[in-house]
Amino acid sequence: MICRLTLPLAVSVGDPAGIGPEIIGKAWEARHDNALPPFFAIGDIGSFAPHWDGPVVKITDPADTFKHFDNALPVIQLHICNSVVPGVPDLDGAQCAYQALEMAIGFARAGSAAALVTGPVSKAQLYAVGFTHPGQTEFIAERCGVSKNNAVMMLAGPDLRVVPMTTHIPLASVAGLLDGRLIRQRLRATAKGLQRNFGIDRPRLAVAGFNPHAGEAGNMGREEIDLFLPAIAQIVSEGFDVVGPLPADTMFHAEARSHYDAALCAYHDQALIPLKTLYFHDAVNITFGLPVVRTSPDHGTAFGIAGQNVAMPNSMIAAIKMAETAALNRMAADAA
Amino acid sequence: MICRLTLPLAVSVGDPAGIGPEIIGKAWEARHDNALPPFFAIGDIGSFAPHWDGPVVKITDPADTFKHFDNALPVIQLHICNSVVPGVPDLDGAQCAYQALEMAIGFARAGSAAALVTGPVSKAQLYAVGFTHPGQTEFIAERCGVSKNNAVMMLAGPDLRVVPMTTHIPLASVAGLLDGRLIRQRLRATAKGLQRNFGIDRPRLAVAGFNPHAGEAGNMGREEIDLFLPAIAQIVSEGFDVVGPLPADTMFHAEARSHYDAALCAYHDQALIPLKTLYFHDAVNITFGLPVVRTSPDHGTAFGIAGQNVAMPNSMIAAIKMAETAALNRMAADAA
Repeated sequence: MICRLTLPLAVSVGDPAGIGPEIIGKAWEARHDNALPPFFAIGDIGSFAPHWDGPVVKITDPADTFKHFDNALPVIQLHICNSVVPGVPDLDGAQCAYQALEMAIGFARAGSAAALVTGPVSKAQLYAVGFTHPGQTEFIAERCGVSKNNAVMMLAGPDLRVVPMTTHIPLASVAGLLDGRLIRQRLRATAKGLQRNFGIDRPRLAVAGFNPHAGEAGNMGREEIDLFLPAIAQIVSEGFDVVGPLPADTMFHAEARSHYDAALCAYHDQALIPLKTLYFHDAVNITFGLPVVRTSPDHGTAFGIAGQNVAMPNSMIAAIKMAETAALNRMAADAA
Repeated sequence: MICRLTLPLAVSVGDPAGIGPEIIGKAWEARHDNALPPFFAIGDIGSFAPHWDGPVVKITDPADTFKHFDNALPVIQLHICNSVVPGVPDLDGAQCAYQALEMAIGFARAGSAAALVTGPVSKAQLYAVGFTHPGQTEFIAERCGVSKNNAVMMLAGPDLRVVPMTTHIPLASVAGLLDGRLIRQRLRATAKGLQRNFGIDRPRLAVAGFNPHAGEAGNMGREEIDLFLPAIAQIVSEGFDVVGPLPADTMFHAEARSHYDAALCAYHDQALIPLKTLYFHDAVNITFGLPVVRTSPDHGTAFGIAGQNVAMPNSMIAAIKMAETAALNRMAADAA
């Protein structure tokens, strides 16, 4: 088993008026305590000081990360420089966030970075500077030549991993979007993602029912019978380990969680409620189905607390560690 | 403040082939450790031995509970006697469950019992012996002369109380059932129930949004704007303390829970997922809006583990304690 990366991780700063610079700086401070692998930030080096008073060093080549990481946070400088006011996003900052993301993807795809960790952005700000994708995940998928339908978001805490099969859409639209093809695609992508990124040979998947009590044999909704059971039977016949649909309310307590490696949920809140109830501060977003490893903290820019030195870096630290784990597992799989 | 009940609690055994007799027996064993108030069971006294080997004593008057409670579990005998096989429900058992519930309601309404704690029943079994209500709650409401729409189910764990505004219906039907009137009724009933049963003078209510991120200002669904905001504004204008609609995924972690006394959720899983994720073994169901106090354990008959001496009495113990608390708070309110 390979246990050390030969490439640094690329961390895009996200919106410089948000808490991105602070949590990246604090993650660097916590590098020894958390045994973090060397990483470099991509952003405007001037955006750190208003948020965080630690040492930064400008680099131009990702490989120089190893030389400097012990003593300072290495930063690849963007061409845009702006004066950052924490908590007050502006268009220069949005341009920075946009370019940092683009550059981080480039490094990861080109083999200059072992993985891509994306800092929090403001979608409203990005839209104002010409970004046209629903979110960072879809943009990364496009840059990697992957259909956005094949990029699957998993959210993970210390002992719970969830995949929402649908995400940011009205709840009333979910039933119309769920079909056998979508369910099968999410199941296969999740199983393969767990194998490739987490080194789990035979991932155990649990599928949440759509209706209360998973429909109780059709008495409270038919999605389980009409959609989930046939899709699951198909995926089981392909050799995957899948159970469900299970009553969603009784599948997330500690003992229940021990029986599966990931829970697949029909809609956003069904997945995010248990995850954030348990792991509000340290959940990580990881994208499956991409040629590169990509993780991100599971929170937003938090403009309201930016610049106050109160942001918790837990989720960023967990995202960096998970990116390392995933990159190592992929190297091991590719070497096998 | 009154701190001791002058009446015993009535506990209906539920289906005698389920874990009801075992958890009631185990709760009686734990009466000292948990400072439980005196209670009597209602069921077939012969249904205890196949589940639990503790002492039982037949009584005919609830008031005799106090005489016997230290030494044995007092049981009011039903007229139906059957031979119970744990895990194998039959129609005699269903008749027992039905009669026990009826009798327990009678004692509570007549002022012979301070409160009603209902053991788990099998709805399928009850239907087979002529029960026609959706569940025990609706039956109790009818017997108390309360419209079933005014009986509100709250589920409570040690530091989370939730009210599902809709319950056992297909998820796709929820949006059509939610209207301003329903939301307002649930908010008022919850606030009044918390005042009356929990002694909270000015209950703080938090309302979960229906859509992801509470709809993000209408970008992901309009239920928040069209239904929730006007209903909440109306209830606030009546003097109640209500916030929301809030993004459902970020309102159930420990810090968030400290800001409200109860969370009102649009549908079953939105309420039950966080509750059972946190408190799978010790959540309690309490019904607001009834003239009598009624609680029950938040689990079913568990036929699959009945008779194996592995059932955990935590939820039954918590239900008995909560019934005592609610009865004392009502006495205090009535005396004021």
